[in-house]
Formats: sequence, structure tokens, C-alpha cells
Amino acid sequence: MQTLDDEHPVLDLSVEECWALLRTQEFGRVAYRLVDEVHIVPINYLVDRGRLIVRTGSGNKLLAAALQSDAALEIDWVDDTNAWSVVVRGRFHRLSEDEQAEVDDSRLHSWVPTLKYEMLALLPAEVTGRRFLLQR
Amino acid sequence: MQTLDDEHPVLDLSVEECWALLRTQEFGRVAYRLVDEVHIVPINYLVDRGRLIVRTGSGNKLLAAALQSDAALEIDWVDDTNAWSVVVRGRFHRLSEDEQAEVDDSRLHSWVPTLKYEMLALLPAEVTGRRFLLQR
Repeated sequence: MQTLDDEHPVLDLSVEECWALLRTQEFGRVAYRLVDEVHIVPINYLVDRGRLIVRTGSGNKLLAAALQSDAALEIDWVDDTNAWSVVVRGRFHRLSEDEQAEVDDSRLHSWVPTLKYEMLALLPAEVTGRRFLLQR
Repeated sequence: MQTLDDEHPVLDLSVEECWALLRTQEFGRVAYRLVDEVHIVPINYLVDRGRLIVRTGSGNKLLAAALQSDAALEIDWVDDTNAWSVVVRGRFHRLSEDEQAEVDDSRLHSWVPTLKYEMLALLPAEVTGRRFLLQR
């Protein structure tokens, strides 16, 4: 990794670094488009064979998947001096029962015990990330 | 505040509770639509007279403001047993120089020292939030 300093306060992460960070986390935020509206919600996710798997009940995210709408998942981390963020942009695909059975969902935690019986995969079109040196 | 328990693992926050939480934070994520694309970026913000003020360089967020595109800012917090999130949906308005001068931007920190000479206000159309009891 390159070093951050005052002359280089922002560095782009490589795609490999982004995936490594995505695998260390299980909580992020998903933004998705629904016609002309933008929605953003916190969400648990799982990295599975190059896809990001999330659970959902019926509703807006399923509709966004049906409409093949653009979506993005973001994770970030901040401490007193450093921060990073990773963004995965792509589209949701609703998994069939057979596809759901192939996902090792023992690792897909759902922190909130509301009914979420559907599984979506965010199929990445673009994975980007940055590290920051903070001025506070 | 209502109490969260196993029978009530999710509670909606009042609009007043949402604003109180927004005022305690200065870091969130902004999602915005750019034609058919959805973008999401981490951002520093400031609550100013019912608006959320952010700084930006030239680029996508300014274009989204010019296009009057839908946008949303999200903040959240998670510990071992509890979480909350607040989402403000609305549209960006690019502040004129006079409007910028009226903002007490001594409280608008920019953690990353890249050039950000423009100021946008997210004008809220909808403010929602939830508290969660987590199952881990």
C-alpha cells in the first residue's frame, strides 16, 4: 500500500484492496433508484463469489431488482486520523430458490429479526475505494 | 422513547429524534441520482436551519444539484446490541455566494483537504429514522 501524507491525503484503493475490505465487513448501506427516487438503507451483506448478497422482505428493493435499477453498496470506516470507503455499483438480481440454496447463508447475518425471505445479489459493474488522511 | 424488546425489535424515530441525532453527527453518506445512475459517497455535513450543508468540488454532485435530482443523506450507528439510522431525502440546492456567507461554516469540517469550494444544501422533503435491537 502507498503511504498517505499531507501531500497525498487521498489514495485510490485497488480493486483487490476493495474486495479484501468488503470481506472484512458485514454491514453497509445500499442506495438504489426507484424511478426518479433515490433510497438509501443500512443493510447486512455477504460476499459470495464476487457478488454481494443481501436479504430483503417484499418491497422497494425487490421492485428495484425487477426494474433492473442501478444500485450501489457502500462501506466505510473512520478513526481519528484515517478513513476509508468502498463503493460497489451495479444492479440487483433476485435469486431463484435454486440460486439461494447455493449461497452459504450461515455467514449472512441479519441483525434485525424482521421477516426477510428473499435474497438479492448485487452484481458489481464497478468497484472503487479510497483511503483518506483526515484533518480534524 | 419507547423501549425496544424482542417483541418490538424495530421502532420508528420521530422527526424530532431524527434531527437531534443529525445534530450529534458530522459524517454520513450521500446518495444521489445522476440520470439513471445511483452514486453514494461518504461526506461531512452540517445541520443549518433545517437544511444539511455539504461542501463539494466541481463534479457529479453539482450536476445532480443542477438537474434537481433526488438525493438522500444517511447516518447510522451500531454497537453490540443496538443500532439506529436516519435518512433525509430531498434535493440539492447550490448555494449562491450570499447564501454561503450566511452559513456558520466554522462548524462544517472537511476531513479530507481536497479542494471543495462549492456549498450545497440538501433541502429535506422527508426525514425518517429507526432504532433496532440487534440479534448477533
